[in-house]
Amino acid sequence: MLERIRKILEDLSQGKTSVDEVILRLKFLPFEDLHFAKIDTHRELRKDFPEVILCEGKTTEQVIRIVERYSTDGPIVATRATKDLYLSIKKVRGEAKYFEEARIVLIGKMRKKTGKGTILVVSGGTGDIPVAEEAAVISEIMGNEVQRLYDVGVAGAHRLFAYRDRLFEASVIIVVAGMEGALPSIVGGMVSAPVIAVPTSVGYGANFKGLSALLTMLNTCAPGVVVVNIDNGFGAGYFASIINQR
Amino acid sequence: MLERIRKILEDLSQGKTSVDEVILRLKFLPFEDLHFAKIDTHRELRKDFPEVILCEGKTTEQVIRIVERYSTDGPIVATRATKDLYLSIKKVRGEAKYFEEARIVLIGKMRKKTGKGTILVVSGGTGDIPVAEEAAVISEIMGNEVQRLYDVGVAGAHRLFAYRDRLFEASVIIVVAGMEGALPSIVGGMVSAPVIAVPTSVGYGANFKGLSALLTMLNTCAPGVVVVNIDNGFGAGYFASIINQR
Amino acid sequence: MLERIRKILEDLSQGKTSVDEVILRLKFLPFEDLHFAKIDTHRELRKDFPEVILCEGKTTEQVIRIVERYSTDGPIVATRATKDLYLSIKKVRGEAKYFEEARIVLIGKMRKKTGKGTILVVSGGTGDIPVAEEAAVISEIMGNEVQRLYDVGVAGAHRLFAYRDRLFEASVIIVVAGMEGALPSIVGGMVSAPVIAVPTSVGYGANFKGLSALLTMLNTCAPGVVVVNIDNGFGAGYFASIINQR
Amino acid sequence: MLERIRKILEDLSQGKTSVDEVILRLKFLPFEDLHFAKIDTHRELRKDFPEVILCEGKTTEQVIRIVERYSTDGPIVATRATKDLYLSIKKVRGEAKYFEEARIVLIGKMRKKTGKGTILVVSGGTGDIPVAEEAAVISEIMGNEVQRLYDVGVAGAHRLFAYRDRLFEASVIIVVAGMEGALPSIVGGMVSAPVIAVPTSVGYGANFKGLSALLTMLNTCAPGVVVVNIDNGFGAGYFASIINQR
Amino acid sequence: MLERIRKILEDLSQGKTSVDEVILRLKFLPFEDLHFAKIDTHRELRKDFPEVILCEGKTTEQVIRIVERYSTDGPIVATRATKDLYLSIKKVRGEAKYFEEARIVLIGKMRKKTGKGTILVVSGGTGDIPVAEEAAVISEIMGNEVQRLYDVGVAGAHRLFAYRDRLFEASVIIVVAGMEGALPSIVGGMVSAPVIAVPTSVGYGANFKGLSALLTMLNTCAPGVVVVNIDNGFGAGYFASIINQR
Amino acid sequence: MLERIRKILEDLSQGKTSVDEVILRLKFLPFEDLHFAKIDTHRELRKDFPEVILCEGKTTEQVIRIVERYSTDGPIVATRATKDLYLSIKKVRGEAKYFEEARIVLIGKMRKKTGKGTILVVSGGTGDIPVAEEAAVISEIMGNEVQRLYDVGVAGAHRLFAYRDRLFEASVIIVVAGMEGALPSIVGGMVSAPVIAVPTSVGYGANFKGLSALLTMLNTCAPGVVVVNIDNGFGAGYFASIINQR
Amino acid sequence: MLERIRKILEDLSQGKTSVDEVILRLKFLPFEDLHFAKIDTHRELRKDFPEVILCEGKTTEQVIRIVERYSTDGPIVATRATKDLYLSIKKVRGEAKYFEEARIVLIGKMRKKTGKGTILVVSGGTGDIPVAEEAAVISEIMGNEVQRLYDVGVAGAHRLFAYRDRLFEASVIIVVAGMEGALPSIVGGMVSAPVIAVPTSVGYGANFKGLSALLTMLNTCAPGVVVVNIDNGFGAGYFASIINQR
Amino acid sequence: MLERIRKILEDLSQGKTSVDEVILRLKFLPFEDLHFAKIDTHRELRKDFPEVILCEGKTTEQVIRIVERYSTDGPIVATRATKDLYLSIKKVRGEAKYFEEARIVLIGKMRKKTGKGTILVVSGGTGDIPVAEEAAVISEIMGNEVQRLYDVGVAGAHRLFAYRDRLFEASVIIVVAGMEGALPSIVGGMVSAPVIAVPTSVGYGANFKGLSALLTMLNTCAPGVVVVNIDNGFGAGYFASIINQR
Repeated sequence: MLERIRKILEDLSQGKTSVDEVILRLKFLPFEDLHFAKIDTHRELRKDFPEVILCEGKTTEQVIRIVERYSTDGPIVATRATKDLYLSIKKVRGEAKYFEEARIVLIGKMRKKTGKGTILVVSGGTGDIPVAEEAAVISEIMGNEVQRLYDVGVAGAHRLFAYRDRLFEASVIIVVAGMEGALPSIVGGMVSAPVIAVPTSVGYGANFKGLSALLTMLNTCAPGVVVVNIDNGFGAGYFASIINQR
Repeated sequence: MLERIRKILEDLSQGKTSVDEVILRLKFLPFEDLHFAKIDTHRELRKDFPEVILCEGKTTEQVIRIVERYSTDGPIVATRATKDLYLSIKKVRGEAKYFEEARIVLIGKMRKKTGKGTILVVSGGTGDIPVAEEAAVISEIMGNEVQRLYDVGVAGAHRLFAYRDRLFEASVIIVVAGMEGALPSIVGGMVSAPVIAVPTSVGYGANFKGLSALLTMLNTCAPGVVVVNIDNGFGAGYFASIINQR
Repeated sequence: MLERIRKILEDLSQGKTSVDEVILRLKFLPFEDLHFAKIDTHRELRKDFPEVILCEGKTTEQVIRIVERYSTDGPIVATRATKDLYLSIKKVRGEAKYFEEARIVLIGKMRKKTGKGTILVVSGGTGDIPVAEEAAVISEIMGNEVQRLYDVGVAGAHRLFAYRDRLFEASVIIVVAGMEGALPSIVGGMVSAPVIAVPTSVGYGANFKGLSALLTMLNTCAPGVVVVNIDNGFGAGYFASIINQR
Repeated sequence: MLERIRKILEDLSQGKTSVDEVILRLKFLPFEDLHFAKIDTHRELRKDFPEVILCEGKTTEQVIRIVERYSTDGPIVATRATKDLYLSIKKVRGEAKYFEEARIVLIGKMRKKTGKGTILVVSGGTGDIPVAEEAAVISEIMGNEVQRLYDVGVAGAHRLFAYRDRLFEASVIIVVAGMEGALPSIVGGMVSAPVIAVPTSVGYGANFKGLSALLTMLNTCAPGVVVVNIDNGFGAGYFASIINQR
Repeated sequence: MLERIRKILEDLSQGKTSVDEVILRLKFLPFEDLHFAKIDTHRELRKDFPEVILCEGKTTEQVIRIVERYSTDGPIVATRATKDLYLSIKKVRGEAKYFEEARIVLIGKMRKKTGKGTILVVSGGTGDIPVAEEAAVISEIMGNEVQRLYDVGVAGAHRLFAYRDRLFEASVIIVVAGMEGALPSIVGGMVSAPVIAVPTSVGYGANFKGLSALLTMLNTCAPGVVVVNIDNGFGAGYFASIINQR
Repeated sequence: MLERIRKILEDLSQGKTSVDEVILRLKFLPFEDLHFAKIDTHRELRKDFPEVILCEGKTTEQVIRIVERYSTDGPIVATRATKDLYLSIKKVRGEAKYFEEARIVLIGKMRKKTGKGTILVVSGGTGDIPVAEEAAVISEIMGNEVQRLYDVGVAGAHRLFAYRDRLFEASVIIVVAGMEGALPSIVGGMVSAPVIAVPTSVGYGANFKGLSALLTMLNTCAPGVVVVNIDNGFGAGYFASIINQR
Repeated sequence: MLERIRKILEDLSQGKTSVDEVILRLKFLPFEDLHFAKIDTHRELRKDFPEVILCEGKTTEQVIRIVERYSTDGPIVATRATKDLYLSIKKVRGEAKYFEEARIVLIGKMRKKTGKGTILVVSGGTGDIPVAEEAAVISEIMGNEVQRLYDVGVAGAHRLFAYRDRLFEASVIIVVAGMEGALPSIVGGMVSAPVIAVPTSVGYGANFKGLSALLTMLNTCAPGVVVVNIDNGFGAGYFASIINQR
Repeated sequence: MLERIRKILEDLSQGKTSVDEVILRLKFLPFEDLHFAKIDTHRELRKDFPEVILCEGKTTEQVIRIVERYSTDGPIVATRATKDLYLSIKKVRGEAKYFEEARIVLIGKMRKKTGKGTILVVSGGTGDIPVAEEAAVISEIMGNEVQRLYDVGVAGAHRLFAYRDRLFEASVIIVVAGMEGALPSIVGGMVSAPVIAVPTSVGYGANFKGLSALLTMLNTCAPGVVVVNIDNGFGAGYFASIINQR
């Protein structure tokens, strides 16, 4: 695109066209053509960063077609992938790997570890692990050291205190919790590191598929806590990574 | 009413009436007339237990009229009473006392302490104190030893742990909290005593006037925690008392 | 852990280490190590009290692994267990028993009856029985005398009145109701015992999976009524037990 | 309008116009002109039945203008009228009467009693009385015998039973209740008469301005109960009247 | 029970017992024993009126057991019954009939027609017919003349007007509608007969399983309209019948 | 119907009947009989415009019966049709065509292109395509030139800007989006053409089946944007067409 | 801005600068500078089209400052303006006019009538008039012929039918309704013109500040109906105008 | 506290006490006494970091008392402070400063700038400025360079693009938006820096006091976006600061 603009300007510079003509042509150039830096950044970005495919709500055919269309050298990441979907992907991209608990398919290599600190992923109960793993694996793929601290729910807060050194040492903390979702408040009250809270849809009754945990986290009185959507392990891992990579 | 029944039966006993006639008359006696024990219990109950008036939503005139109508010797308790309302009540019942933070008016004496253990009222923030005091004062009026442990919010859970002896010693614990309402979960995870959680409408944004705290408490994964309505300090104090008095 | 601390202190007592060294080591000991009593209590607690596994949302494999990991002598209780899950558990723990209506698996013995009074479980309709049974069986496992009073819905309140003696004699009452959830209000208006209300998700239309019954119960004007989460029979049974065991 | 049609048809009958011309003219006559019966019925209706003005959300000027515009001989009824509004109405319509608790202004006479039975208005608490009175006064204005049975809330259901004769004798029962709104379920379970349930916005916390009571009533398991909008005493009184007048 | 009371009173009458003794014994008689009329009424009621079983949420076994337990001579009605359930019932009660669209099983005879007028059941779309049929068949079983007027939705209101004679002649009108639920408002604006609105869960998107239609109906500005729960055809048919039978 | 009226009037014109008789008969004619123009319009409308069948919530039998009943020459359109349903329709109407992504069955011909401008259908993600296609195909069937611009989500707004010429040239724009539903706001801020926003139920967590997208679109601060129901591609396509055909 | 670009290009054309230098400078020009047409359109647009200020939520000072800052020759329109605010505006812009019912301030002239057809604004009740007027006045200011048809609520649908000619003749119809919000469904079922539905917050009880009417309108089964936000008369008037001006 | 522990250990070291005695005393030391580092950190933290008082929901007296009680040398920050409250604070703490738009009172000095990059606060409309300022001022007080970019709403996204350099240069971006809340999605789609989204309660109709904007932000499809509570400018500023200070 830069070439096309350069050509137009060279024509003008060489008297082959008029100022008015150039203005007219510039006006009709597609928008992005003028944003060189942005485009470059984007290309650069895409090269060393996973372009992520949310599989949920897509047919196997659609995912396969997207995977095949990619021309990037960088890793391709597909989230919310069932094992069956993974097996279908593997047929067209033999190098695909599957993180079962995290429900993530990775085609290509993980970025090498460049983050300065450790991302700690804390979760409350057994049912929260898939979301916690989604966050953890995304962070790892994006080049971060990740530690896991699972099954430290609020109902036994003393267990959490036993691991306070790990909490104090972490660079960024992701806290995944369902049910009442109080865990991020407690962690946020203990540490000075940024805490990313992920409500999960685990629970029953007046939990309303994670709404209860979401509201708890939004209303936390501990400062330094932010929230992502229900079950959005990917979003939390991604955000933790861009903080840790700064 | 007992007299009327006795009269009917004496008539039958003396041959002044027939069995069929008695059956017919019994059938049309008002229901409660036959439930002597219940009525007695009720009267007994009223004597040594506060009959409670919820002032919110009543005019001053209505409250005064109810207060004047009472013929009981026991204490009369009015909740959610403004100071102005108290002053109006004091004109007709000079012995009325006012618990300002709890917004409670007491006419008559507190029941003497008969509860076996201590009721501990824990609260999170400054804004939760009126509800906590409502719970505490009701418990005291109903004859219980009450301890208060205020301002021990989740965002500084270590403050709570510093007082764990008081938590362990309490017979019943009332936990009052707004915002995210996580405090009862933490207390419930620490103690074996029954915990009564009171969500308050303190908070803003996605708190929705206490709904967030209410849902948190209902979804607690700590066993041994039950919930009353938002801002219902009275209900919590009352329930704590009947447990403690058993 | 106690041993480790004793060892450190004995070293100090014997001049093998310095005060500063001890302070440093104490500081890095895991939190719980210092809370001997609490740990003991916990161990004690676990011995004679069921550690409960919520099966809903866990795979058969996960439940089996948890069951196998247990080293306790006390009973193991698993709630929300399907019959199939029970059969899988029975293969690894032959002594497992199944309470079908309550959907509870018990491995080990019920605690012997130590509660002072009777816990009465009242329910409205046929559909509420699984939740009522969950509450009843948990109460029994935890060592309480339990009576059941089923199918006494609001639409025929006179049936409820016919059993008022049972209501008056109970030490704690659990009321399980779906649809409009009015039953706890009526029971709470009749008795002086504590009432634990359990909304169920039974109903249709504007019931919203139990939300209607939950709101009814939270808004009850009968004092002495507290609420647990929708369908949370376990929570109600557990709470009733700790009250009754006091 | 009838005259216009008659004129057209007479012209046709007298040969002054053609069939096609008549068809054309009929086609463009305003719709209502052809619905003689309906119009008559309407006029008839208006004569002996109150045309109701909902004052809430209207300015005093708007209400006054509507009142002045009326050419009817029948009564004019204005609901949700403040006392100030009443005094303004009285200036232009000296015969206006005010039902203060019901917040209703009546200009003209009540219809004479023609309903076959008695409409019984039952209410739970002091705060529900304005809505109950709105229902009761509307029923009276529309020509029905009305009985009131106030302050018989669920928390003391035995009080309700004491009045069961009145409940059994009523032709139609309106039950007004706030808080948990369980009263209609109990009444509906006792009687065979139609029950019209009116939720009120009385309550606090998780009551959500009457939503809790509304849901309770919609989910009632007692057959023979229908529901109107929150605080809609007018709607209940109106419906009760058309049933009772049949 | 009557016999037991008679026996007690005869003993008294014959001097075999004292007045105090009788009072004591009466006090402990189960409640219902004293409400002869009510019991009789009930038995009477059951004889010529269908005792209704809501099959939804019950297992086939539970329904069969309830059906077998019945000792009544009157009809037994089961609603929300699948065809499979009907076939199971038919095995134990050969005389059972099935109303397929209404999903109702009838064991025994319909009550003979005694209602004074006609109940008209109006519905909007094809999807609303099961609910409309439930209302219609219940009304017929309870002894009413029923007319059906289906597929007259709001989007073609002129179709509704074409049938206005039927609307004007009906004694009671049941209007069943999903989607936006506006039909009862229009019918209610046309007729003077009582209108019972039944929202259905038919719709999609922001319909929220009938909530939209329910709110529309509750907020109707047409007087003379009451509402039952979403999809509650039974409740509407039952209520229409008790009005029509008066 | 016109014939019947003409006959009556001719009778009058010929003296065979009286004016009063005619008035009486007119009064009882079904409503629609008098609205000739409307009926004609309707018939006309039906001829060259698709009468649409919403298949969702109807059984295959019901759809087939409706399809068979049609006597129109114009196209018949069935929306939300599964492939199986299409195959069943094809058996009775061999000319039926199926638009698979749009889930639309068309029997008959598309209207020829008469709209003045182009309808542009923009969508955010892969999951939104079925709804977008429903809108697009309906617009095409109704005689409009349609362009598609898919996969231009908010997260890469520069992609959208690259196509701004297409956006500026469109006569009407339909924007289909799930997740956060921000796309219509951005498009609406760029163009002066009318924008019809269609929220989809695509998303997870706090999306609540499209509610989030719906609210976003209703609250847009871009003028010139209107909204239809969640997933209502049909409604958007229909509305776009009537605008474009004006 | 055009001048700055022209200057750069002329410099290049005259050899005063290099191609690389131009590319660099173009790259850093603010975005909008390159979108001449868009800017022109915008300026053009602003000239003969009202730039609208939403006063609600702004202080008088803020509105005055915005009004003073405008350098446009075209009209300035401020919506949701109180009379007091208008008087403050009039002090700085003496030519300001006030549309009291619509709560709109107009500074400058209305656009001359250029729309092809008539925009008809229909409303249900007295309380809906401010919103209806906002829609009507905005349409007029934007250069459209507007007709008003107020007070034709659903409860008297025959009144609406009486005006069907006006409905049939309108080019675009805006229907404003509160309470149950059914009016757009009825109008949409009658006409072929596009209908823009505006829910209002008029109502009480389960109306939830317009939510009920909003849901009704979104769920309408009449095709050709779209919806704007609650009380958004401006949005409806604006959209109607851009349709009518096409 | 350290002194007390040191004393105990020195006693042991000097043979003045036994190991068992030390264990006993350690066990009963308040929890926090053993967490020296944490306490130090806390004190350190307090010294150079603002301890924040949320004034909303507190009386002037309560705030004054808290302010007086502080013994810290560091700054004291009070948020949601009215001007009147500020004037009251100024009487007891003369050095207090007031940030009027941000509604923040600062007693003491801002921390000196230590953050590595710039925090950019972007906001949509005039009404969002108080929340944006709260975020900006908190960030400044906590020692960060802050830039403001206000009034760049979605409805004119090209304005946002004009400032893309500022967006690209920022270290952390806070995006404050009400209405539909789409701004964070667009910014998040453009930049690689972490974006903290703050929904505001600005809006009307179906905005539901910020709920609409909150849901939009939680459902964003742009990665790298997290959310805080509605109107929680403080939380966003605090979180941005701890990221930027790393």
